[in-house]
Amino acid sequence: MLLMHLSDVDEASWTAKLRAALGGYRVVQRGEAFNPDDVRYIFVWKPKADAFDGLTGLKAILSLGAGVDALLKHPALPDAPIVRFVDTDLSQRMSDYVVAHVTMHHRLYTRFRADQKARRWTQLYPPAASETTVGIMGMGVLGQDAARRLLPLGFALRSWSRTPKAIEGVEGFAGAEAFDSFLAGTDILVNLLPLTPETTGILNTETFGKLRRKLDGGPVIINAARGGHQRETNIASALNDGTLGAASLDVFETEPLPVNSPLWDIENCYITPHIAAISNESTGVRYFSQIIRDHEAGRPLINVVDRTRGY
Amino acid sequence: MLLMHLSDVDEASWTAKLRAALGGYRVVQRGEAFNPDDVRYIFVWKPKADAFDGLTGLKAILSLGAGVDALLKHPALPDAPIVRFVDTDLSQRMSDYVVAHVTMHHRLYTRFRADQKARRWTQLYPPAASETTVGIMGMGVLGQDAARRLLPLGFALRSWSRTPKAIEGVEGFAGAEAFDSFLAGTDILVNLLPLTPETTGILNTETFGKLRRKLDGGPVIINAARGGHQRETNIASALNDGTLGAASLDVFETEPLPVNSPLWDIENCYITPHIAAISNESTGVRYFSQIIRDHEAGRPLINVVDRTRGY
Repeated sequence: MLLMHLSDVDEASWTAKLRAALGGYRVVQRGEAFNPDDVRYIFVWKPKADAFDGLTGLKAILSLGAGVDALLKHPALPDAPIVRFVDTDLSQRMSDYVVAHVTMHHRLYTRFRADQKARRWTQLYPPAASETTVGIMGMGVLGQDAARRLLPLGFALRSWSRTPKAIEGVEGFAGAEAFDSFLAGTDILVNLLPLTPETTGILNTETFGKLRRKLDGGPVIINAARGGHQRETNIASALNDGTLGAASLDVFETEPLPVNSPLWDIENCYITPHIAAISNESTGVRYFSQIIRDHEAGRPLINVVDRTRGY
Repeated sequence: MLLMHLSDVDEASWTAKLRAALGGYRVVQRGEAFNPDDVRYIFVWKPKADAFDGLTGLKAILSLGAGVDALLKHPALPDAPIVRFVDTDLSQRMSDYVVAHVTMHHRLYTRFRADQKARRWTQLYPPAASETTVGIMGMGVLGQDAARRLLPLGFALRSWSRTPKAIEGVEGFAGAEAFDSFLAGTDILVNLLPLTPETTGILNTETFGKLRRKLDGGPVIINAARGGHQRETNIASALNDGTLGAASLDVFETEPLPVNSPLWDIENCYITPHIAAISNESTGVRYFSQIIRDHEAGRPLINVVDRTRGY
């Protein structure tokens, strides 16, 4: 039996579609009558405190999110394997966001918009893509997809990750000791890291000060991962004093971003309301119904979270 | 002998570099003493009215620009073959501009910037690249390069050109009779056409009205070719009445764009001062010195303009 436990999304729609995809397999929602001991899988998004109560026969926790940092903090999280959503459609959308913001900053959008407001015609030629280095933090599924999209555009690429990752055309840096060298050659910093104790607050004043100052206006940061990665007071200062030329932020320490946040009014801060990418329902139904069918047929689970790494 | 005749660029620098690249071959500038009958090549950018006077032995006209529309209108243009600059570096920069503006509009930049100004947190998920169709007008060197960069990003692509062009992954439309069908499936229209009598003013009210209305906010135009392609009063109206969702313009009917143009103040009009791409000096020196050396050695000229087509 699969128990649905989705908050803040259309649980009824997911349930109907998973029922259809899973044929005879029983899918139940909270509130329906069922025996908790019979639940073998639970499908969660923002699970409540009592989500896992009484689930003695749980074989796997299926997470709608690709990031499981919040889930791992659940006070009553059972010891069952957690399968996270690896969604090619989500990777595509995330890369769409990353490419749009990388290219906009590379083409000096902030500068030309200010000139337009002043009705000023000042010809300045942006560098070619090959003259600009994009540094990607995080080389998981999302980081690799972003690299794969940015490479054919001609950008110089480098990556930073916990363990070394060899991606053709991308200069790899790994571990804390390589972080400064990674930053020293980066013009546009893209964050796609998982949120772990080690990466919390990594987008801070010290990090910004180590970026290369080659791009007109100053280095740029793009955060499409988690608000917990960033120190927003540091970002506001860095944008205002020129340490950073611009920032594109899709995530925030508190969401929705509070109406009194200073970030809203900063001209070179580009805010989107956590919409870089969303898990697609039809892709998700296909993915999770396959996971359950395969596992019921005795095949191993895929994309299981490593709890010690945190992702 | 090669005669230099470049206006509005650093002619002295080009001359010095071409002299170095061409070894013993004689390169002269206007004002120096030389016999016009000895000039076999003239290298031009915005040639003055008397540029070609007395050049009885001319074998080729070398054009620094990729577009030769202005040159073809020169009242005293000799009958010699015109070699235009096909510059891979210029193609890269032009594609950088195109990709930056396509992706920014695809990600609904105008909408999110308005929300930011209003401190409004409204989650709206942009379509995936694959759900958005970019229509490229002009499938010459620049159009093909833009297609090559946009394809790996996942966009649906279609092209419109005078004669059919088969590019893998791009749905081709050719000729006047296919123009309406081309527009009917286009969400973001990119103009990279040569400026000819047939394409003058092609970005007009009638064209805008035929574009697909699928993208949130309305269809978008991007003009990186020539100001003569656009009717700016039509663009201003279409942006103001919602026929167009946004326009990115790098070129204008009059340049610099007059300070009293209504375009400057239109929020969803994105103006850059004809900086999408510039011919690169070192690439140009290599290209044109090779053209001269090859031709002097008896090999045929490449990239010769077809005067009846106009490019």
